[in-house]
Amino acid sequence: MSSYTIGLDLGGTNLRAAAFSADGQLLEQLARPTDIASGREGVISNMVEAINSLRRLHTGRHLLGVGIGVPGFIRLREGIILNSNNLKPLEDFPIREAIAERLGTPVILENDANAAALGEKWQGAGREVNDLVMFTLGTGIGGGIIHHGRIMHGSDGMAGELGHITVMPEGNPCDCGNRGCLEKHASATALIAMAQLIRLGDDLTPVEIAAFAKAGDRRAVQVFEAMGRSLGIAIASVINTFNFPLYLLSGGLLPAWEHFAPTMLAEVESRSFTYRNSHARVEQATLGNLAGLYGAAYLPHLPVELE
Amino acid sequence: MSSYTIGLDLGGTNLRAAAFSADGQLLEQLARPTDIASGREGVISNMVEAINSLRRLHTGRHLLGVGIGVPGFIRLREGIILNSNNLKPLEDFPIREAIAERLGTPVILENDANAAALGEKWQGAGREVNDLVMFTLGTGIGGGIIHHGRIMHGSDGMAGELGHITVMPEGNPCDCGNRGCLEKHASATALIAMAQLIRLGDDLTPVEIAAFAKAGDRRAVQVFEAMGRSLGIAIASVINTFNFPLYLLSGGLLPAWEHFAPTMLAEVESRSFTYRNSHARVEQATLGNLAGLYGAAYLPHLPVELE
Repeated sequence: MSSYTIGLDLGGTNLRAAAFSADGQLLEQLARPTDIASGREGVISNMVEAINSLRRLHTGRHLLGVGIGVPGFIRLREGIILNSNNLKPLEDFPIREAIAERLGTPVILENDANAAALGEKWQGAGREVNDLVMFTLGTGIGGGIIHHGRIMHGSDGMAGELGHITVMPEGNPCDCGNRGCLEKHASATALIAMAQLIRLGDDLTPVEIAAFAKAGDRRAVQVFEAMGRSLGIAIASVINTFNFPLYLLSGGLLPAWEHFAPTMLAEVESRSFTYRNSHARVEQATLGNLAGLYGAAYLPHLPVELE
Repeated sequence: MSSYTIGLDLGGTNLRAAAFSADGQLLEQLARPTDIASGREGVISNMVEAINSLRRLHTGRHLLGVGIGVPGFIRLREGIILNSNNLKPLEDFPIREAIAERLGTPVILENDANAAALGEKWQGAGREVNDLVMFTLGTGIGGGIIHHGRIMHGSDGMAGELGHITVMPEGNPCDCGNRGCLEKHASATALIAMAQLIRLGDDLTPVEIAAFAKAGDRRAVQVFEAMGRSLGIAIASVINTFNFPLYLLSGGLLPAWEHFAPTMLAEVESRSFTYRNSHARVEQATLGNLAGLYGAAYLPHLPVELE
């Protein structure tokens, strides 16, 4: 009897779930609104229903387990979301146990950026390495560290919060209590705020800002240069810290690569001796917004490891 | 027949070597000038003689191996010092092989800050944990990362260069090519330069600056606050990255702890959500300037691991 796993990627707007074969083939995928307005019980029921829909397609096969990626700070041991800006109703509740109980199958909770990094290691741009760091550039910036082929969790499962690396000591204030966090200077939210600040336009989307940059608008170009600069500062420090072979960028801002990457790579080049003297590569992830699903589905294949 | 190991700590000024029992007892220690003026051959002969002096005290016991800690960027696989400000004559030469050949025994080369972190894990402040990060505050700032009880090396043995984390994007230029490296804002060299800049005095030693601070001199207090602030920025980012249980500070500036630690810890507290929500501790290392010797001597007990 062949086994399979289910990955679920829970976002503030949509949840997606998919079944995967043991060798990494995506079998079926479904998506539905998270419906955060329905509260904790509503969201949990929604997740359980999505997973059960996939199970019904595989009766007779062995479900090895379910992995769930969620945004925010997570206590891995307890299976609790400690702090998540987009999933406030789910905070401080033993969500992993609640879902496992209703499903009657093992559930692994993981930070979504960690899951995405693991997905890229399993079936994406990181297939040929065992050590990589991935930055996920979205509304915020998440991070995932893969070491010896596994997620590096730290003591409480909170390792890899790379969006909260300080890139400007007196920079923009962050909800985490810090100032100048990477995600306050290089996320979609930061791009939009910068565009507003330099009067490029109010409430422009990153896609619109990219279109302005493509058309040669100097202000839009500067917005992406500022983003690239902050990313470069953070990535250089991360390279000097890890000396890993691969650093990946992913997330919704990846299509703007041509606009931010030149500045980013120039910063990395000038700021990291280790980069210049190793074979480190800074590259685009390849699984797009499916990386988190892949990684979540790979979790049941790994031994649970609390460091 | 009981076995023993020898650790050697090679500095720009002095070299120290010691024999250790397998259970971490320091048996004998000796120190002598590095005599860098005698050139590469002179320094290597000096090291070999020091090690052989210790061996003569242990004829009849089994020498498991020799570990050598050296400052600077190292290529672990090749056993080469790539770049070391204090040991220029030893750069780009297969020093590990040269020494192993003359000794007829296995030699392991390691970055001195990595060795010091490992020493603290073996017999110092990190004995009860398996994961720690150590910052060594001296002329420069070194770093060592211990994960699962072993040194985290990265692809080329260059991981843990924490002195080159950017704390001020437009800060002081560093030999590594970066600006605003931690070690340009929080090392002994940085303290001395700051004291000069704010006209506290020319060529004051850190001990003298600390004496001024102790006496209540506002400028000296500010110098240490600036140092503490830079350290706090870097440590907060490192905590957000690793979520490890222990962060140690060591090195020649440690006696000034009372002057820089309050600002440092306040920065860490405000800048790291992970610190505030975990049991992470930021503490003083306990082996003093012997940590590197301990760690070097522990190296032959560990499997060589290239990640």
